[in-house]
Amino acid sequence: MKIGIIGLGLIGGSMGLALKNVESIQERHISRILGYDNNPLHAQQALNLGLVDECVELNEIWQCDVIFLSVPVDGIVEIISNLQPKDIDENTTIIDVGGAKVQILASIPKWLRQNFVGAHPMCGTEFFGPKAAFSELYKNGIVILTDVEQSGVYQVEVAKDIFIGIGMKILKMSSVEHDKHIALISHMPHIISYALANATLAQEDPQTILALVGGGFRSMSRISKSSPLMWKDVFKHNKHNVLQAMAYFQEKFDEARNLLENDDWEGLEAFMAHANTLHKFL
Amino acid sequence: MKIGIIGLGLIGGSMGLALKNVESIQERHISRILGYDNNPLHAQQALNLGLVDECVELNEIWQCDVIFLSVPVDGIVEIISNLQPKDIDENTTIIDVGGAKVQILASIPKWLRQNFVGAHPMCGTEFFGPKAAFSELYKNGIVILTDVEQSGVYQVEVAKDIFIGIGMKILKMSSVEHDKHIALISHMPHIISYALANATLAQEDPQTILALVGGGFRSMSRISKSSPLMWKDVFKHNKHNVLQAMAYFQEKFDEARNLLENDDWEGLEAFMAHANTLHKFL
Repeated sequence: MKIGIIGLGLIGGSMGLALKNVESIQERHISRILGYDNNPLHAQQALNLGLVDECVELNEIWQCDVIFLSVPVDGIVEIISNLQPKDIDENTTIIDVGGAKVQILASIPKWLRQNFVGAHPMCGTEFFGPKAAFSELYKNGIVILTDVEQSGVYQVEVAKDIFIGIGMKILKMSSVEHDKHIALISHMPHIISYALANATLAQEDPQTILALVGGGFRSMSRISKSSPLMWKDVFKHNKHNVLQAMAYFQEKFDEARNLLENDDWEGLEAFMAHANTLHKFL
Repeated sequence: MKIGIIGLGLIGGSMGLALKNVESIQERHISRILGYDNNPLHAQQALNLGLVDECVELNEIWQCDVIFLSVPVDGIVEIISNLQPKDIDENTTIIDVGGAKVQILASIPKWLRQNFVGAHPMCGTEFFGPKAAFSELYKNGIVILTDVEQSGVYQVEVAKDIFIGIGMKILKMSSVEHDKHIALISHMPHIISYALANATLAQEDPQTILALVGGGFRSMSRISKSSPLMWKDVFKHNKHNVLQAMAYFQEKFDEARNLLENDDWEGLEAFMAHANTLHKFL
């Protein structure tokens, strides 16, 4: 079995490493891991770092049995729209790992739909590019498979085998539900972190930030270091859900501000005590 | 030298452990570490956990050479206001470790001012109470000493020796500057995290949160688990700076929302790329 990976950054590169390192998949006879990145420097870095066995042209990737699309969402849509039926064998499995699913899945031509499995591995770090890849990224994580009933049964099994093989747990969900929930739990918190970083950078010089930084600010600003290129596409493709999630946050932020403005310290304590209930399960 | 600690939670309890475990301070002949907590259960837990050598009544604490005030800010102010000149020897060093300094320092009677050193160790975790204490909390952290020119020279030296002895670096700052900067870099981000947790809890059931949670949400919600009792007092004592910091954040959050609403994806990418510059020094 040949595996192809399009996009050799944190997500795609870590997939290459994970596939190489997991024994149970080696037993499934993965003969070769091919990579493609439209940035020649990234392709070379991926080779040097051993993320894939070989970097090839795009047309050679399509001859693989399993192909991962691990580029920003706009790139996934563009790659799909350029595909022709002659490029793909009927048994080929194409797995996209984009962070917003509805628009990707809507852009797939009917003839390709059975080959296609929409997946979102719930893992990442604030680092990006081939140098950020590491073999343990996916281990013990959850991967959401979206709208699997529209994928071929064989392709879904192939995708599940691979994700389970690299140590992940599978969760199925409709793309509509996925995009809604994930806007609140993942996408919107990134907006908050970017805004917090920019507010702080606008008011404080780096020396003061460094002098006063504690664990709190480090946690809250960590994901503001994430890839603007990747996140731009996610926000674009999940715009309405993200705006709705921002409104939910705004409501609670306003509530806290009102409590402060009105010296309602008992109310503020109750507000925080309610947030503490996250402790119970997270 | 006897050391007394009033308040045996994460901050005070960790101080007890740190003082016991650092050799360079043992050489300074710390003969005993006494503790007081107005919650009898916490006092007993602190004893069982070995955070202090002995739990005593408040009047016995005042006979110590160095006294740490590690209770919520309102408690610090109340304790100070009940002190009488007869309670304190002229060489006693009282160190408060509250997170907002201006109002604490303003509440100190003139006769006590030379005994008093205002300190803010820039460390903490989202856990609280005696069970949260650990000996490494302060190691390699920064402690801010505020308005030290109003403290006795001897008392400042005692405080510095202790903080350096447990592995901290010293930074001096006026209480006014401290409260302003720390509102933005520490206090306000806690408000954000509490609001994010409450927004998510209002919209999602625990099962969905657990299924979809990734490193991003974990980072962003971590400090929403912090002590409501402690933070209520911090927000109360630093209200105006916190509201100003919330306004700074709001400005950037609005900027991001406008970019999304107007489909200005290049603008949003630039917004995120600017936040990324935190990478350069943090």
